Amino acid sequence: MSDPLKLVEAVRARLGPKAVLTDPADIEPWATDWRGRWHGKSVAILQPSSTEEVAAIVALASENGVPLVPQGGNSSMVGGATPPADGSALILSLRRMNRIRSIDRGAMRAVADAGVILQSLHEAALEHGLRFPLTLGAKGSATVGGLISTNAGGTQVLRFGPMRALADGIEAVLPDGTVHDGLTGLKKDNRGYSLDQLLVGAEGTLGIVTAARLKLVPAIHLRAVAWLGLSSPQKALDTLRALEADTDRIEGFEILPQESLDAALRHIPGTRAPLDSRHEWHALVEATTHGADAEPPAELLTRLLAPLVERGVVENATISATEAQAEAFWRIRDSLSEAERAAFGPATQHDISVAVEDMPLFMAEAAAEVERAFPGTSASGFGHLGDGNIHFHVRAGTRGGPDWLEQEGNAVQWLVDDLVIAAGGSISAEHGIGVMKRDELARLQPDRVRHLRAIKAALDPKGLMNPGKLV
Amino acid sequence: MSDPLKLVEAVRARLGPKAVLTDPADIEPWATDWRGRWHGKSVAILQPSSTEEVAAIVALASENGVPLVPQGGNSSMVGGATPPADGSALILSLRRMNRIRSIDRGAMRAVADAGVILQSLHEAALEHGLRFPLTLGAKGSATVGGLISTNAGGTQVLRFGPMRALADGIEAVLPDGTVHDGLTGLKKDNRGYSLDQLLVGAEGTLGIVTAARLKLVPAIHLRAVAWLGLSSPQKALDTLRALEADTDRIEGFEILPQESLDAALRHIPGTRAPLDSRHEWHALVEATTHGADAEPPAELLTRLLAPLVERGVVENATISATEAQAEAFWRIRDSLSEAERAAFGPATQHDISVAVEDMPLFMAEAAAEVERAFPGTSASGFGHLGDGNIHFHVRAGTRGGPDWLEQEGNAVQWLVDDLVIAAGGSISAEHGIGVMKRDELARLQPDRVRHLRAIKAALDPKGLMNPGKLV
Repeated sequence: MSDPLKLVEAVRARLGPKAVLTDPADIEPWATDWRGRWHGKSVAILQPSSTEEVAAIVALASENGVPLVPQGGNSSMVGGATPPADGSALILSLRRMNRIRSIDRGAMRAVADAGVILQSLHEAALEHGLRFPLTLGAKGSATVGGLISTNAGGTQVLRFGPMRALADGIEAVLPDGTVHDGLTGLKKDNRGYSLDQLLVGAEGTLGIVTAARLKLVPAIHLRAVAWLGLSSPQKALDTLRALEADTDRIEGFEILPQESLDAALRHIPGTRAPLDSRHEWHALVEATTHGADAEPPAELLTRLLAPLVERGVVENATISATEAQAEAFWRIRDSLSEAERAAFGPATQHDISVAVEDMPLFMAEAAAEVERAFPGTSASGFGHLGDGNIHFHVRAGTRGGPDWLEQEGNAVQWLVDDLVIAAGGSISAEHGIGVMKRDELARLQPDRVRHLRAIKAALDPKGLMNPGKLV
Repeated sequence: MSDPLKLVEAVRARLGPKAVLTDPADIEPWATDWRGRWHGKSVAILQPSSTEEVAAIVALASENGVPLVPQGGNSSMVGGATPPADGSALILSLRRMNRIRSIDRGAMRAVADAGVILQSLHEAALEHGLRFPLTLGAKGSATVGGLISTNAGGTQVLRFGPMRALADGIEAVLPDGTVHDGLTGLKKDNRGYSLDQLLVGAEGTLGIVTAARLKLVPAIHLRAVAWLGLSSPQKALDTLRALEADTDRIEGFEILPQESLDAALRHIPGTRAPLDSRHEWHALVEATTHGADAEPPAELLTRLLAPLVERGVVENATISATEAQAEAFWRIRDSLSEAERAAFGPATQHDISVAVEDMPLFMAEAAAEVERAFPGTSASGFGHLGDGNIHFHVRAGTRGGPDWLEQEGNAVQWLVDDLVIAAGGSISAEHGIGVMKRDELARLQPDRVRHLRAIKAALDPKGLMNPGKLV
């Protein structure tokens, strides 16, 4: 095994002492993922301040045969940024590279270093009357580099797409130490395979993302959030399709069952039921406008929802009268994971997707199948119906106590994953593969993994980029 | 060298006589590109009728070591679909696979075989009240597979993006004979590198595209086309940015100089000057709506252009009063290549892009540089300013006769390409690399080509997929 300390010395000699952290107290918080599920070891954190410094580090790592684990906010859900436990690799932190290089109002693009935190990007765009439309729970810590490398999703994918659709170009240091410069802002470029697109969702296994050019949209002028009572996920989807047939201003569409709403009302302080009626299912719908000339979103939603209520597709509906009420609706949605944990105890959580049109049937059939195979459990899902992406939970129910996850978690995981693959879906909709799902992907899709490995070996023949992740 | 006739026999034995054409009269039109610039040879055309048959052919080709040249409409601008001259490869025609597998109105997606002709796709979408928004001159022959493999562009890229943005998933037979199925309709899928995106623009060098899932948009309800007189490309860009700040309904923005307009008026029967005034530059602007509730596009353009005319950004403007007039405006734009050939004689043509904001300055500086280096020539450009993609032409002028292209064409090409690369641009904006630009790409960007070759070798280790193209 090559010696990571030799790389530490080489980097210190080349880039000076500021580029290297070796105090165990500085390293420890970053050697374990944020939820404390994966524990790694690293004798140092390398923290370059520029693309040139990243290139120097990658070249030195290649010379010394020492693997690098790139890290942004360390908010991976799948152990994607945790170093190997044997201490063979060094953490490469991009957090010092936190400059927004430019915001071009005319072209509606921002160029941001990999270490820029999502929230900072939101604020910077807003100062120019613009918006970076991707947002998610970890926005206070997640970085541009991590969002690119995991093809992050979130709640506004419905209208604006995931990071893959918002990345207009990427700068990265490839494993051979050369810099790929995709920041040139070309709208049309047909010089063969897109290295930009290859780096999106690569989880740091093909090189170190150092910056990205990102699409912006006009800032929100007005928004409105509707809360709907519905009899089923299918009715929710029918509603979404009916809305989309008349407007392109719907940018959020989330569903949850009554029991999840009840859990939030019971366990999350300050939440109130949006409707005074009970329904099997609920949906939250957000519409926005970015100009004063367009129909205000509350009027738009009122106009479009009225005939759906009349026809019985929607059982009941209310529309936020104020921004505070809109926030309160979203607060219920955003607290569902926490509320479910408090209300239902141990549960397996599955970040899965199938084709949007197939999701209502899949949810019903998968829940029935799981409950049959593991009597006493109860299965349900909530989340981004409009993206075909549900966070599917299997709760221990009467079947097990606090150690149920250890006893049966894997068996439940395999069954759910088998059902997802049989439905043509993905076992990772938005969290990535990382360490957590690597073996599962190889079990389920050996052909696919073989092709990914061939690409990985071609660009990173020494296997030094984020070892042990994805492939 | 392996024997292509052995593959012919193997395919005939496996798939029957309908899958193979060996009559030279059948082969000849497809062995040369449509403009007659590249001449190849092939002893047979293989014409599978299903993905399974393509997979069988690829497996047999791999066993026999015979390269395959995939072909759709054979309308490549860069020799991307012409077989090698030594007859070592077989043409694999996708034209028998011409079924539109499904159109999903709710999800606004079509799944089409690789051999579906663009025009047929347009018509099929329209029957469902939908539109496939990409269009280009060769729409009567270009196929879905070719459009995917060349990441095709065209005139509506401004709003809807090139093929890369419209491809929602791809089915392809990879070089090892396995089928990659990306047609599952997942809006979110984070299982590592996107093979779909890798196949877009790969020019058939990584496998055979057999089908694609494509994004559709609502059919056009109304459209209007404005014709503007302007003093410069910079004013044109200022105009575009001013329009885009107020609306997202602009979907075409093309510019041309007065001399190109004059050429069209002189040489293209039935054309008339849209304005009664002369201007250094002209722009064509298209706006559409897809619903009756939106402001009609003619009113929208009138309202947004009026202040620009008042402020002198736009010198003069007229808006099409009828659909026939809108067509007449577009007819001028679409005939520019032909008109320029007739008016100015031999010229080199460069399909180039730079960042949109940089294009006005680039056009002026590059033209000056070329005219200085080659006294007597005149250089100019027209086309997709809103995409940063100009068709830049260098006309022989007083410098040479009919054989000028042969004498100085390459030298002019190299100079223009050097200027494009120095400006951070692309030497192929929308036509691809093919045979024509392969050596030039390797000369200008050896690092990039090394990475492309590594990927190519990883997925196609025997080098049997469209040999001699791109890498």
